[in-house]
Amino acid sequence: MEFQTNTTVEFNRHTDLLEKANSNRPHLIYQTVKPARLVDIVADSSSALGYTAKEAKQSLAKLPTYQLGKGDSITFDLGNHEVGHFSIHINACGSPMDAPLYLHFIFGELPVEIGVNGEPYNGVLSQSWLAEEFIHIDKLPTTLELPRRYACRYIKIEVIDSSPKWKAQFSHPQFIAESAVDLNTVTPLKTGDQLLDRIDEVSLKTLHDCMQDVFEDGPKRDRRLWIGDLRLQALANYETFDNTELVKRCLYLFGGLNAKDGWITTNVFTQNEPVPDDTFFFDYSLFFIDALADYVEHTKDYTTLTDLYPIAKLQMDEALKLVDSNNLVSLDPSRPVFVDWSMDFDRSARAQAILIYTLRHFISLTSSANKQTTSYNNTLNKLIESTRSHLFDKQKNLFVSGPNKEVNLASQIWMVLAQVLDENENVELMKNVQNTMFPVTGIATPYFYHHIVEALFMTNFKTAGINLIKRYWGKMVQEDADTFWEAFKPEDPSFSPYGSLAINSYCHAWSCTPAYLLRKYVI
Amino acid sequence: MEFQTNTTVEFNRHTDLLEKANSNRPHLIYQTVKPARLVDIVADSSSALGYTAKEAKQSLAKLPTYQLGKGDSITFDLGNHEVGHFSIHINACGSPMDAPLYLHFIFGELPVEIGVNGEPYNGVLSQSWLAEEFIHIDKLPTTLELPRRYACRYIKIEVIDSSPKWKAQFSHPQFIAESAVDLNTVTPLKTGDQLLDRIDEVSLKTLHDCMQDVFEDGPKRDRRLWIGDLRLQALANYETFDNTELVKRCLYLFGGLNAKDGWITTNVFTQNEPVPDDTFFFDYSLFFIDALADYVEHTKDYTTLTDLYPIAKLQMDEALKLVDSNNLVSLDPSRPVFVDWSMDFDRSARAQAILIYTLRHFISLTSSANKQTTSYNNTLNKLIESTRSHLFDKQKNLFVSGPNKEVNLASQIWMVLAQVLDENENVELMKNVQNTMFPVTGIATPYFYHHIVEALFMTNFKTAGINLIKRYWGKMVQEDADTFWEAFKPEDPSFSPYGSLAINSYCHAWSCTPAYLLRKYVI
Repeated sequence: MEFQTNTTVEFNRHTDLLEKANSNRPHLIYQTVKPARLVDIVADSSSALGYTAKEAKQSLAKLPTYQLGKGDSITFDLGNHEVGHFSIHINACGSPMDAPLYLHFIFGELPVEIGVNGEPYNGVLSQSWLAEEFIHIDKLPTTLELPRRYACRYIKIEVIDSSPKWKAQFSHPQFIAESAVDLNTVTPLKTGDQLLDRIDEVSLKTLHDCMQDVFEDGPKRDRRLWIGDLRLQALANYETFDNTELVKRCLYLFGGLNAKDGWITTNVFTQNEPVPDDTFFFDYSLFFIDALADYVEHTKDYTTLTDLYPIAKLQMDEALKLVDSNNLVSLDPSRPVFVDWSMDFDRSARAQAILIYTLRHFISLTSSANKQTTSYNNTLNKLIESTRSHLFDKQKNLFVSGPNKEVNLASQIWMVLAQVLDENENVELMKNVQNTMFPVTGIATPYFYHHIVEALFMTNFKTAGINLIKRYWGKMVQEDADTFWEAFKPEDPSFSPYGSLAINSYCHAWSCTPAYLLRKYVI
Repeated sequence: MEFQTNTTVEFNRHTDLLEKANSNRPHLIYQTVKPARLVDIVADSSSALGYTAKEAKQSLAKLPTYQLGKGDSITFDLGNHEVGHFSIHINACGSPMDAPLYLHFIFGELPVEIGVNGEPYNGVLSQSWLAEEFIHIDKLPTTLELPRRYACRYIKIEVIDSSPKWKAQFSHPQFIAESAVDLNTVTPLKTGDQLLDRIDEVSLKTLHDCMQDVFEDGPKRDRRLWIGDLRLQALANYETFDNTELVKRCLYLFGGLNAKDGWITTNVFTQNEPVPDDTFFFDYSLFFIDALADYVEHTKDYTTLTDLYPIAKLQMDEALKLVDSNNLVSLDPSRPVFVDWSMDFDRSARAQAILIYTLRHFISLTSSANKQTTSYNNTLNKLIESTRSHLFDKQKNLFVSGPNKEVNLASQIWMVLAQVLDENENVELMKNVQNTMFPVTGIATPYFYHHIVEALFMTNFKTAGINLIKRYWGKMVQEDADTFWEAFKPEDPSFSPYGSLAINSYCHAWSCTPAYLLRKYVI
């Protein structure tokens, strides 16, 4: 996707809605984590991402006795992925401290981020996200409390310089992990399948670490409330932590900050006062409806429905304005469809499917709000009819997309989820998809793999769904994932949507859904 | 000189003396400095140190309108050398701030420090002294107040990255300069010679910027109370700012922290509780006597004399233990003689001269303390007699040093200052020195140039003394010095005692003495 820059878009600030967002702010839970061991990060061609953490020769128990001078380093392994703040006690040993201590800290969710540190950075996202600090310390001893929040398992400290006359000694490393929820409140799955159980455990940890002041997309990078992530996080949350206040807070943030033309932004910045981003996706705006419908169905919170229904209705009404005389969506180029980081698919059929999918949810939401659904039902029928007649190739038993009648996986999956065909037809379609398009390739995100698995489960291909979970999320587990990644192509493990493995997020909300899928469809 | 590491030396902590040091702590004077202009630091082969500050195309008045993105930079010129704290207001412009701002700050006393930043550092002193910071800012707008103290005239801010969607805007740059004294309380010299007047002005600024919580050697690097610097700073201070409390504080710090074997350290760290360094120089320990004698002569503060006389006496008594049966000093290798950063001279004759020089001051101090001087007078006579008979080559009319009877400038100068010969002989010796050893080469510090000039003035070579001031300090003025430098060899301007121009200190206390020499001997 291209970066969107729409600095002239004006936004509403519905203060009544934003106040409700604020009053549902979570109290974070803090937990003290001590490092589990000392490691060395080493290049390892057998690892998908090229680096591994090897037990160090030094022992953590003897840490306070080690003296680190110019060029020496030490790497802590927290034992698991954590989000929070790091502190460490530092002293000088030798002659009196005759110069500042100059330290370099590198934080890695995975070994690769530490391994490639120091190489030129050519990623498309800001280099400022690389989790490292250069810090001068003028007075020792001190307990250094790094003021910024990090998402990491590995913490490397390199002494750039002390002085020829003294060295640094480190002790009491400590990480205060934070989250809006407590991992101990959720019972992990016991499926009898170790890999599935581990996938569930990693999913829970991923969700836990992304649940902060809002549902963040990733605690390492962006750290933002994205609606695409929120929708899936909320589903997984209902099945696990069930913190409904945090969902409510996030729905009010989106609802309170729509643009003057009605549309909801893709994401909101919350580090200061909430600010809507000026990036818009056709599908993400519509997913506000979906997220609200799921929330209302789970909580029966009709006050929130009443508050936010008008915003949800705006999304649908604006989207329907893009439907042409053939009852097909004609996308506004300024509001593209996201679906996956892979760029090389035609997107028009899936836009049509997502409109139908969300219109179904909107009709149920409208019913819940005790409002008339007739005209939306009529529209739904027209959209379905037109989709079947224009976009379904009966001979191939597959949907086509765009002027070149491209057949791609994403269109089929979203058409299944949107229930454009009837139940039996959907089963036949998914059978055909598995025969002709599996094993899946060219898909780069757990976000879209989620939808494939859900389409399989919906069409009763339970084993295939489980197998895909094991093949995709299981592959990350085999690569020592403590949390699931933002982007992963099993056939090209070193893929980055941003051109750098250093900048990828390795704990990313939209990848947590096995915890939902397994509980909803398997157990 | 080699680094000394004497971690087994034990020190006294005379709490009564240290309390007096503490009660004479100065109240720093703070002054707000706004940058004078924006500059570009450019390579310039016509500049002695290789770089110059050129007026930038941007104007300071328009600063708040400039938008700085990835790789952009801006360099402030404060208009003069300052010591203190920098702050600046920063905002984001464009789309919402979707990543941290990552900034690189470089502080330069001279353009060269900014010019060579980024080149590999191979200096012998700690790289931690290079005045630069890498700072992530997670929230904008903000007023960034850098917590550390810097000595600088130039401040470069480089945007390592913002993001493709927004840039940084800077406004309200501000430097809060600090010193124990007020420059406005001293009347600069009006000699009628513009260069001499400028040398005086730069000397005053040098002393001013080094007068902080203690007399620092240099506010950029070390930032320490060194006795060699203190002795000369105090002399210049008496003629100018006349802050006698600060001298008193520093004398008590040295007196309160001598080693258990009696000797006073070369320098004290004062950033936390005062800590004596484990480095010892024969001459520096003896200069405690000199500094105390100057102080008592200037202030008539006999309480301080009474408190510190026993410590001063210890230095002399310990030094005299090193005198052999020929009445010549036989140096302990663990306590070398410093004199200058140039390493390639035999140092035994000058050690003998400095012992005689300080013994003269010690005798006058002993008289002031109403104590018996007879035995010290006897020793003085023996030392002089032996020096004349063993170390003076009558034929050459020059002093020799060491087993190879080396003739070097430092020996002659210190023998003159120590008045080993009588007044007329001293004049003849200095005439000979000028004929055979001028122009001076191979001397790297203003510290030793000070002693050459003082020897010239003492022997009534007033014009030669003034000329040497103009030739040496004047050359730094021509190179745009706002303050005088730690090290400077006119015949090799890019000399660094540490192997790097980036680490040299360009505001160094021991170079401030023209303010003293001109007032004492010229006006």
